[in-house]
Amino acid sequence: MARRNKLILGAFLQTPGQHTAGWRYPRANAEASLDIDAQIAFARTAERGLFHAIFIADTLPFPVNLNDETLSYSARVVDFEPITLLSALAVATNRIGLVGTVTTTYYEPYTVARQLASLDYLSKGRAGWNVVTSSNSAEAFNYGKREHPLHSLRYVRAREFVDIVKGLWDSWDDDAFLFDKASGKFFIPEKMHVLNHQSPQFNIRGPLGVARPPQGHPVIVQAGSSDAGRTAAASFADVIFTAQSDLAGAIAFYDDVRARTSAAGRDPDHIAILPGVTPVVAATRSEAEDKYAQLQDLIHPVAGVAMLSGAAGADLSKYSIDGPLPEVPPTEGDKTRQELLVAHARETGKSIRDLYRWLASGYNTVVGTPTDIADHFEHWFNSGAADGFNVRFSYLPGDLDDFVDLVVPELQRRGLYHDAYEGVTLRDNLQIPRPHSRYRRD
Amino acid sequence: MARRNKLILGAFLQTPGQHTAGWRYPRANAEASLDIDAQIAFARTAERGLFHAIFIADTLPFPVNLNDETLSYSARVVDFEPITLLSALAVATNRIGLVGTVTTTYYEPYTVARQLASLDYLSKGRAGWNVVTSSNSAEAFNYGKREHPLHSLRYVRAREFVDIVKGLWDSWDDDAFLFDKASGKFFIPEKMHVLNHQSPQFNIRGPLGVARPPQGHPVIVQAGSSDAGRTAAASFADVIFTAQSDLAGAIAFYDDVRARTSAAGRDPDHIAILPGVTPVVAATRSEAEDKYAQLQDLIHPVAGVAMLSGAAGADLSKYSIDGPLPEVPPTEGDKTRQELLVAHARETGKSIRDLYRWLASGYNTVVGTPTDIADHFEHWFNSGAADGFNVRFSYLPGDLDDFVDLVVPELQRRGLYHDAYEGVTLRDNLQIPRPHSRYRRD
Ligand SMILES: Cc1cc2nc3c(=O)[nH]c(=O)nc-3n(C[C@H](O)[C@H](O)[C@H](O)COP(=O)(O)O)c2cc1C
Ligand SMILES: Cc1cc2nc3c(=O)[nH]c(=O)nc-3n(C[C@H](O)[C@H](O)[C@H](O)COP(=O)(O)O)c2cc1C
Repeated sequence: MARRNKLILGAFLQTPGQHTAGWRYPRANAEASLDIDAQIAFARTAERGLFHAIFIADTLPFPVNLNDETLSYSARVVDFEPITLLSALAVATNRIGLVGTVTTTYYEPYTVARQLASLDYLSKGRAGWNVVTSSNSAEAFNYGKREHPLHSLRYVRAREFVDIVKGLWDSWDDDAFLFDKASGKFFIPEKMHVLNHQSPQFNIRGPLGVARPPQGHPVIVQAGSSDAGRTAAASFADVIFTAQSDLAGAIAFYDDVRARTSAAGRDPDHIAILPGVTPVVAATRSEAEDKYAQLQDLIHPVAGVAMLSGAAGADLSKYSIDGPLPEVPPTEGDKTRQELLVAHARETGKSIRDLYRWLASGYNTVVGTPTDIADHFEHWFNSGAADGFNVRFSYLPGDLDDFVDLVVPELQRRGLYHDAYEGVTLRDNLQIPRPHSRYRRD
Repeated sequence: MARRNKLILGAFLQTPGQHTAGWRYPRANAEASLDIDAQIAFARTAERGLFHAIFIADTLPFPVNLNDETLSYSARVVDFEPITLLSALAVATNRIGLVGTVTTTYYEPYTVARQLASLDYLSKGRAGWNVVTSSNSAEAFNYGKREHPLHSLRYVRAREFVDIVKGLWDSWDDDAFLFDKASGKFFIPEKMHVLNHQSPQFNIRGPLGVARPPQGHPVIVQAGSSDAGRTAAASFADVIFTAQSDLAGAIAFYDDVRARTSAAGRDPDHIAILPGVTPVVAATRSEAEDKYAQLQDLIHPVAGVAMLSGAAGADLSKYSIDGPLPEVPPTEGDKTRQELLVAHARETGKSIRDLYRWLASGYNTVVGTPTDIADHFEHWFNSGAADGFNVRFSYLPGDLDDFVDLVVPELQRRGLYHDAYEGVTLRDNLQIPRPHSRYRRD
């Protein structure tokens, strides 16, 4: 049962596009990944479309076994670091939320707490943090590690890490600062709190060198789908992304995560569950199908196999492209994505080529007219599968423009989507309450 | 001998002000540290004054022995994290350089390389990095360390760290990217370079997930003054800050650092040495003196002693405020600052109160008319003590406004300062060449 009466929409701004071949599409800006003017324009279009937030992913684009030649057909090798990009977008936009991905596996909580608190101030309460544990195990190699920590250990660390960051955000009460020129007193000493977190993993004293963020805590987003991932989400996340691609699975996920949230002592109405969706939209169905077919035909086989190898967690370049997916050892990276792929391969018997074509646009591609897309959104929303969607764009800026110009008005006409931003902060717009400080005395 | 014919000026934007009591001054914005609109206004004023760069320091404001009551008279407890702030300022300004402080002692080179490369793109070639080794030893407590590493070890790490970051910035040749929609080839494989740095301290593979920055490498700034600090500066810095406060010492420093730069195989004409200076300016000398006296009288004794304790590396609150500086053990934090203070105390026999009054405005305070300030700048510049100055403001925004409105025109009238930005990137404006990639083949 969807508790909200309007959809929440996130814009997943993956440059130059979500689709493996998106950058080759005629209307794509292939060079957008390193062009701040282009990215400001994308963010402003998303804001015009009243998206609740833009979302910037962060996955190291390089595989464990680097092969420059294979990699050179991929457009996902360079882009901006998310927190710097969002800090720039903070002053180039006014109302849209700004969610950035930061890994708990290779970063330090004090720095993460500071940068996100700072972003929350720069954006006047519009920051969000997508907590990940690094789905690409090759990240280890850039942080002095021989191997990626085990999936389960990464989640243990992630939970403690988020707890520390929240504690650091509470270092100062909301009303700690006096700025009193007359007495010379800058703050009230009793309203400063020293975390003193000590554990085998972390020793963090505090206090944080940033006042309590405008939102209390920036919005926490999580996308883990494994058992450990869901439990983590239920314990700390405000917004949950998922890659569920069939309605029954999405409903089961929705109910499961809400139940875990209650079990963790939190109100499930204070979270938002957003499955990913990749709409391929055009004025008529045949135009939309042509667009999709054109995208699929633009996938260079080398790029397709490289992308599929990433999801499979194994180098597939030595297998026949028209043969089946070989047995792959269980990954320590993104388990959920590997399991989905292996299950789909087993069910359908698809070849490597057909599998990368299936994966190229993301798990949940809907091809059709604005009415078709709106029907899909409405159906999932009313079936209790989603509080809204994390919308992916096959290429930028064209696909985002089309969504804002064609789909948004249709959703609004149906009363499914807001006509203006309701509030000032991202929490306001998501209707997720501002958290109390852990040091609150009442 | 100063090789440049015009001064380089950096604006040290310490909010709410450089002077310990600056925030209490009537024209100060005491709340500016967490107000992005105020900081955008400061940066735009500095840009109107044609400053080559703004400079954001980063020192943990909390002492080793936290004492909330003492601390509560200090205005330097919260501010923005430098890299996020500068990313926001990148899109709110057009020509001014953006130099941020990042410590090599507690950060990871891969993340630092990414964030600074990203900032260089966001600002279209205006990024700089002030490399520090953390002058406050209490930073250790926020990064899981029981104690701050020794000064000498911090510099060993810093030099390797900078070398790695520069190597990561060279991951992609300037012309590596094809963006070739027709062939599907995104980049030229031979133009991607994998660092593979392996040492007892660091194992960093690469390549960096950001293309080569617009400036090749963002401008590197360094402010170490100890022997190890100067050697480090000579080996990697483009711009060198120093706190030299007498002309003879400044000339000796200038000559020494240039000689070390030559010895390191680099052209000393490709560096800029900028002593810090704190002008207290007004239309007449007596107005300027009144302004300075008023600032000095606003220092709350608790704040004064706390600030002095930081510089001394010892808690002075238990000593008589009108007695002498006690013996202090050698610090592992900012050695140079401690030595300067101890030497000054010994020479003058000043009390703790007089010492904090002396230190409150920074080492090099010049009180007077625009002509007095310009005379000082001109004298140092022509004496071969400086390529320009790192200008500090006792409080913001008033002191910055006064400098831009009163001193800048006087410097321009004398032909000592530029009338417009000459170039697009910070390197252009500093006349410091864009570095070649370490992988260049000729
Ligand atoms: C919409 C979405 C966005 C994600 N973004 C990232 C990301 O930016 N970086 C990353 O390392 N993992 C990302 N992931 C992967 C998740 O963090 C997580 O590893 C994945 O969903 C598998 O869950 P599990 O780790 O619990 O098995 C994303 C997943 C989804 C569904
Ligand atoms: C203008 C200036 C700015 C500085 N900014 C910082 C800073 O932001 N963070 C920091 O930890 N140290 C800062 N320092 C301290 C220096 O990095 C260095 O530790 C100090 O000059 C003493 O040199 P030494 O470490 O070689 O003894 C600064 C020093 C100067 C002169």
